Amino acid sequence: MGSVAHSVAELDASVVKITRSTNLRPVPEPGSPEELSHSYCTDHMVTARWTVTNGWETPEVKPYENLSIPPTASCLHYATECFEGMKVYRGYDGKLRLFRPDCNGERLLMSAQRTSLPSFRYEELKVLIAKLMQIDGPRWLPKDQPGRFLYLRPTLIGNGPHLGVQTPKEALLFIIAVPWPDPSKLKRPEQGTQCGLKLLASTPDSIRAWPGGFGYAKLGANYGPSLVAHGKAQAIGFDQILWLFGENRQVTEAGASNFFIVWENKETGKVELVTAPLENQLILPGVTRRSVLQLARTELAEPTGSLAPVEVVEKDFTISEVEQAWKEGRIIEAFVCGTAFFVTPVKLIRDGGVDMDMLEAGAVRAGYAAQIKSWLEAIMYGKDGQENNEWSYIIEGESEK
Amino acid sequence: MGSVAHSVAELDASVVKITRSTNLRPVPEPGSPEELSHSYCTDHMVTARWTVTNGWETPEVKPYENLSIPPTASCLHYATECFEGMKVYRGYDGKLRLFRPDCNGERLLMSAQRTSLPSFRYEELKVLIAKLMQIDGPRWLPKDQPGRFLYLRPTLIGNGPHLGVQTPKEALLFIIAVPWPDPSKLKRPEQGTQCGLKLLASTPDSIRAWPGGFGYAKLGANYGPSLVAHGKAQAIGFDQILWLFGENRQVTEAGASNFFIVWENKETGKVELVTAPLENQLILPGVTRRSVLQLARTELAEPTGSLAPVEVVEKDFTISEVEQAWKEGRIIEAFVCGTAFFVTPVKLIRDGGVDMDMLEAGAVRAGYAAQIKSWLEAIMYGKDGQENNEWSYIIEGESEK
Repeated sequence: MGSVAHSVAELDASVVKITRSTNLRPVPEPGSPEELSHSYCTDHMVTARWTVTNGWETPEVKPYENLSIPPTASCLHYATECFEGMKVYRGYDGKLRLFRPDCNGERLLMSAQRTSLPSFRYEELKVLIAKLMQIDGPRWLPKDQPGRFLYLRPTLIGNGPHLGVQTPKEALLFIIAVPWPDPSKLKRPEQGTQCGLKLLASTPDSIRAWPGGFGYAKLGANYGPSLVAHGKAQAIGFDQILWLFGENRQVTEAGASNFFIVWENKETGKVELVTAPLENQLILPGVTRRSVLQLARTELAEPTGSLAPVEVVEKDFTISEVEQAWKEGRIIEAFVCGTAFFVTPVKLIRDGGVDMDMLEAGAVRAGYAAQIKSWLEAIMYGKDGQENNEWSYIIEGESEK
Repeated sequence: MGSVAHSVAELDASVVKITRSTNLRPVPEPGSPEELSHSYCTDHMVTARWTVTNGWETPEVKPYENLSIPPTASCLHYATECFEGMKVYRGYDGKLRLFRPDCNGERLLMSAQRTSLPSFRYEELKVLIAKLMQIDGPRWLPKDQPGRFLYLRPTLIGNGPHLGVQTPKEALLFIIAVPWPDPSKLKRPEQGTQCGLKLLASTPDSIRAWPGGFGYAKLGANYGPSLVAHGKAQAIGFDQILWLFGENRQVTEAGASNFFIVWENKETGKVELVTAPLENQLILPGVTRRSVLQLARTELAEPTGSLAPVEVVEKDFTISEVEQAWKEGRIIEAFVCGTAFFVTPVKLIRDGGVDMDMLEAGAVRAGYAAQIKSWLEAIMYGKDGQENNEWSYIIEGESEK
């Protein structure tokens, strides 16, 4: 007689249990203090519990509430936690859309594996989000207000009560939806019309990630320890740290976003869109990053409007190369991208005593970031002929309000 | 008229608010499943809330309970969390003692600063623990059972509801006390009388810490990402990873403990006690580590019983040097130390295809770890003339049971 395999349950979004809130919360106005606080969620949340013995229990959509967590829980001591950043968009055709949600699902799975949290069928993530938005979508993203979005935060934590340093035996997947300020409408008064981020290059005493580490996974452990440098940069008027790595000071990420530069190659004279590569596992494989690269490769290889054709290059490059290009007038533009702040131009980079203005530098030839951003927006909001783009996942079946 | 400085409240253990449990829990027997689970706490816990606006609120001793945490809390997403490992010992004179608690207080403060959590007067930590143990000590560490201890876990988390990646605006300090198995009584059956840890040397694809990182601080972020390697090692019969760093494969830490080796110096023929240095900030500055080094420097510089005098060396050393010393019969013993597992001999180190037996190697000349351990135990439990050692903090004023 053979051994009996013990099979634990898979995450299954088709059997979600739904409990509706009887105490709906006011929906904050765009630009209101509630929205700007990043701390106000919609009426409901998704939760799914996992144990090493039984696997995934039936997921729930239930009223938003605080989590009850044992003081001994792994996530409070050992940072057994990972997350995703996503958005749900109210389209100009009245539909709700997710943008490439399986990319996020797959990355959450990879992050979970990097910190010993349980595996799951990543395609279920978008279905769980759909269940949540079928209920909260109509009130929180009204059909007659296209162009609005909610920020989504799928999170996986080790919440079992075992204090020993060990692989978590219990975990909780939860998904919350957060009204979020529109980054394109956030301008500091002193910026006037010159909107853009100010980046402060990191110093060798503060290193975000390392080969053999976990900089490529969306773990909590990448964020908390970076806040000291971030806080110091903000205190002197900068928006983000530009994280450098290694003795030659390679440019890796900007804050929690991927960094891109458009410059003229000194040898060839060609326009290049350059960003750090994924191979050395120092940077997060951003979904927006991937999309920007794909669009640039397919749509910007030929002249487009006033834009010269661009060559896409994923490679290690150093802050010295950026400075040299800037001194020689070869910078065209720089931008960062990520879900939370989308595609945002960089105004200034400070490295030590050198302030590099990225907006004036190549203003005449710039426009790549804006072009890519507008293509992405069309897909996200289902407009300009992009109602059925393959990167969109349309959420059907919204409740009556 | 000058500006009015806004002063926020300091952490103040003298004003603690006490709420006693009316539902006392059974005390688990030594070696019971409850104790072995590392998940069962005493009747009460300490909590102290902090906000950026008001500083530290009045600390509380209250019945042990789950924490209510917003799903948006910083500690669940960004690993804004740090902790200490300590023990409270029931002495042979009937008194409760902490071992060098200000060392832990100071390190918790350092860890808090490394992950943007609030500062506090670190001397208050031992007083808060005393308030907890005055209540839980008599039941959980009975006066007539000297030689027992509880594990203490002071923890600081960012628990405010702001989901933006930013310095925490709210935090919670909590202290729990956990019945913990006595590491000297934990033996695997297959070990027989040859008790000792089996360590698996890490490979370059898994790095615990790096220069400019946070390996020297007791942050959650150091633990979760290490569990994958740890779990794989355990699956093939090892107890801990021996973490190496750099191209020359320096020996840094073992699991979450500091690593020591006693060997004969090839040039001088002298006995050396060697451990990794603190300067490059790769390893945790252990309280036990510091104590071992101090005792070895002051008490083992001259011949002691059958032990030859030892020279204490804090320096970078590589796994190749360990292997060479092992091949040449110069290894005397190896051990790890830390609060949770105290001073524990190393039985075996595996690096790639090489298995180095550390027990047989120098058994005749060994005994340094056991000697240091017995001195430390005397201090911790107030015996052998160590009733008033300066490293002890005696907790007075225990409640009647």
